[in-house]
Amino acid sequence: MDTTQQAQHAGKAKILLGTLGHEAKNRALDNIIQGLQAKRQAIVAANQADLDLAAKENLAAPLLKRLKFDDQKIEEACEGLASLIKLEDPVGRILDATELDEGLELFKVSCPIGVIGVIFESRPDALVQIASLCLKSGNAVLLKGGREAANTNRILADIIDSAAVRAGAPEGWLGLMETRSDVEDLLGMSGYVDLIVPRGSNAFVRHIMQHTTIPVLGHADGICHVYVDGDADLDMALRIALDSKCQYVAVCNAAETLLVHQDTARTFLPRLKERFDEKGVEIRGCERTAAVIDVAAAVEADWATEYLDLIISIKVVDSLTEAVDHINRYGSGHTDVIVTGNREKAMRFMEQVDSADVFVNCSSRFSDGFRFGLGAEVGISTNKIHARGPVGLEGLMIYKWRLIGNGHIVADYTGQNAKAFTHRKI
Amino acid sequence: MDTTQQAQHAGKAKILLGTLGHEAKNRALDNIIQGLQAKRQAIVAANQADLDLAAKENLAAPLLKRLKFDDQKIEEACEGLASLIKLEDPVGRILDATELDEGLELFKVSCPIGVIGVIFESRPDALVQIASLCLKSGNAVLLKGGREAANTNRILADIIDSAAVRAGAPEGWLGLMETRSDVEDLLGMSGYVDLIVPRGSNAFVRHIMQHTTIPVLGHADGICHVYVDGDADLDMALRIALDSKCQYVAVCNAAETLLVHQDTARTFLPRLKERFDEKGVEIRGCERTAAVIDVAAAVEADWATEYLDLIISIKVVDSLTEAVDHINRYGSGHTDVIVTGNREKAMRFMEQVDSADVFVNCSSRFSDGFRFGLGAEVGISTNKIHARGPVGLEGLMIYKWRLIGNGHIVADYTGQNAKAFTHRKI
Repeated sequence: MDTTQQAQHAGKAKILLGTLGHEAKNRALDNIIQGLQAKRQAIVAANQADLDLAAKENLAAPLLKRLKFDDQKIEEACEGLASLIKLEDPVGRILDATELDEGLELFKVSCPIGVIGVIFESRPDALVQIASLCLKSGNAVLLKGGREAANTNRILADIIDSAAVRAGAPEGWLGLMETRSDVEDLLGMSGYVDLIVPRGSNAFVRHIMQHTTIPVLGHADGICHVYVDGDADLDMALRIALDSKCQYVAVCNAAETLLVHQDTARTFLPRLKERFDEKGVEIRGCERTAAVIDVAAAVEADWATEYLDLIISIKVVDSLTEAVDHINRYGSGHTDVIVTGNREKAMRFMEQVDSADVFVNCSSRFSDGFRFGLGAEVGISTNKIHARGPVGLEGLMIYKWRLIGNGHIVADYTGQNAKAFTHRKI
Repeated sequence: MDTTQQAQHAGKAKILLGTLGHEAKNRALDNIIQGLQAKRQAIVAANQADLDLAAKENLAAPLLKRLKFDDQKIEEACEGLASLIKLEDPVGRILDATELDEGLELFKVSCPIGVIGVIFESRPDALVQIASLCLKSGNAVLLKGGREAANTNRILADIIDSAAVRAGAPEGWLGLMETRSDVEDLLGMSGYVDLIVPRGSNAFVRHIMQHTTIPVLGHADGICHVYVDGDADLDMALRIALDSKCQYVAVCNAAETLLVHQDTARTFLPRLKERFDEKGVEIRGCERTAAVIDVAAAVEADWATEYLDLIISIKVVDSLTEAVDHINRYGSGHTDVIVTGNREKAMRFMEQVDSADVFVNCSSRFSDGFRFGLGAEVGISTNKIHARGPVGLEGLMIYKWRLIGNGHIVADYTGQNAKAFTHRKI
């Protein structure tokens, strides 16, 4: 089957999948757990074939690590599925209800978006996670994984697809695309695909965002800032700066730049450097930073770089305004933190920083669907429409308007003897 | 100032405009009313210059009509502004609040999207309406109007801009673009413009949707259907079909195709034809329609055509399923209606028709922000994300996440002695 046919099948399947009951969807998710556990050996063997080929092709060690899908990954995937079963059905929720006139009632009701295109690099666990999120939310899904995980992806997609169909999902609800040209095909399918969710490196996500007119849910860069204000508790600022930078460096919500108010720089920076030195963090500082502590000189590009490593850039600023301007200029609209004891400044920071997550006196690392209590995470979005920040299942949902009347026509509400609308919330 | 500079100014202005208080925004709207009324003569004179030029260039009569901005249009614009003042501030609403742990509280707070690009043909009233909607919602706006309305647009933009700045809006919050190349510039400004709202013909909107990676809020076609089920009350079906087609033909929510269940065709179609003949509606029917009433033959293209005129296509279908399939295949996802006395069929129609508005036993013409009671209408969207159907001010809003802690770090919630999150709604 070619990609267009797969997309057409998904387009048909979405209608029935969107009306599949909550029980059937949960039974499908349970079938997937059973399937993954029953075919454990075959999955690991398929993954081993991918790993062997990747090793032969000298794939880099971090890529090999992400490619690995072993017993533990299967267990984690099953845990994720079990927790997804516990979530409420996101479909059919009445978001708003208004009586327009007697006997004419309007309901805004949640429904799936339709067909989600998922493009991901390496990690086969992303396939299980996103396919099951689509299933729970009633969306058909077209999956395009990395070539290096072809064997693993094939068996996983097959288990998920047949498990769901056995529970009542329509054939064609899940399509796996495999050839290299399929990504470009998918990006051009604005008639079939309603939303694209990319999972991969910054460069990969940016490429996707720039090459499609289909909406893309996600983020490329995560250039997060911690601003230590003049009114900050410096012990707290130290804890937060260290956690934001070092708790896990290879993630989008780790801090890349520290902004320090000039009133604090002289006392704070030496203490910070001591701790960063202990942790092996390389510091690149502006001139005013270099006047206080011994650091490499930051260049313009540093302010716009997501290191994803034990490196941090530091800039001393004159004011909250300068900090906010710097963040809005160089940041990626992901997560930015102020450490301050001043309530008014905290509020101004939260209002004026144009980012998905604006935090006061806590670590940037809290920016995460699980920590936010969303139950499931579709991704973290730096979009300005639809869904922003950590996105749960609601990111895969939209709504439709149901209007139920009893022969009502617009002509009765226009002209000289026009009836009036009641517009009463119900 | 070139378009890039205008966009940069808007990008700066959006930060302050987004935090402008409700009182100041309403004062700005009130200033606009005063300004429009005080400069009534100058506006009408500027518009007359545009009309004279357009007449010289032999602009078509409907275009001339839309271009006209006279005393009555000024009055209507002022009424729109007055009702906008009465709406609640859409900025700063707490949409959700969760305690993550003691002293660590998460708030999902509504905020403006940022910079809205508005591209519109002819009608100068669209400029006043959309600029004031952006102002109320705290969004900066870049406006590109039609060349034929250049004089009118210039004076209106000037009145609105200066009225708002007098009330405290930041300079540069409104930019008017005038040259022909500005549209292409605007479509390429994905770094500056967060959302595009087009106002114009189907072809115009479709062109915009296909030539930008910036999200576009709106709709191209409005191919709306009325399906008369076998269980329909035929008097009601007649009223609804007539209202949906004839109450106002030149609008997106008018019906273009009627689907009739085979059980009703023989009794319903002759009655319908009689009424359509009275109204001067041309009917193009499928073969089974032609077997019952005397009509022109519909061709394949008819099912995908938005006539915006006194023309309707009619198809006899075997079942609800065939009606739903036809709508999902040929429709535009705008508004579709079922007339039926059967509750289960009504529900199935509303669930399976993949359109923004799915109506039961009422006219398609109710699909409208005012009739829905939204207070203001940004447009009607056939998008599958962000906002769908008639869109009020909420279509210009997004949210950010504010997390307020007291030195909280992620390290405390990981590893062996990990603290647990409370995730308690507050």
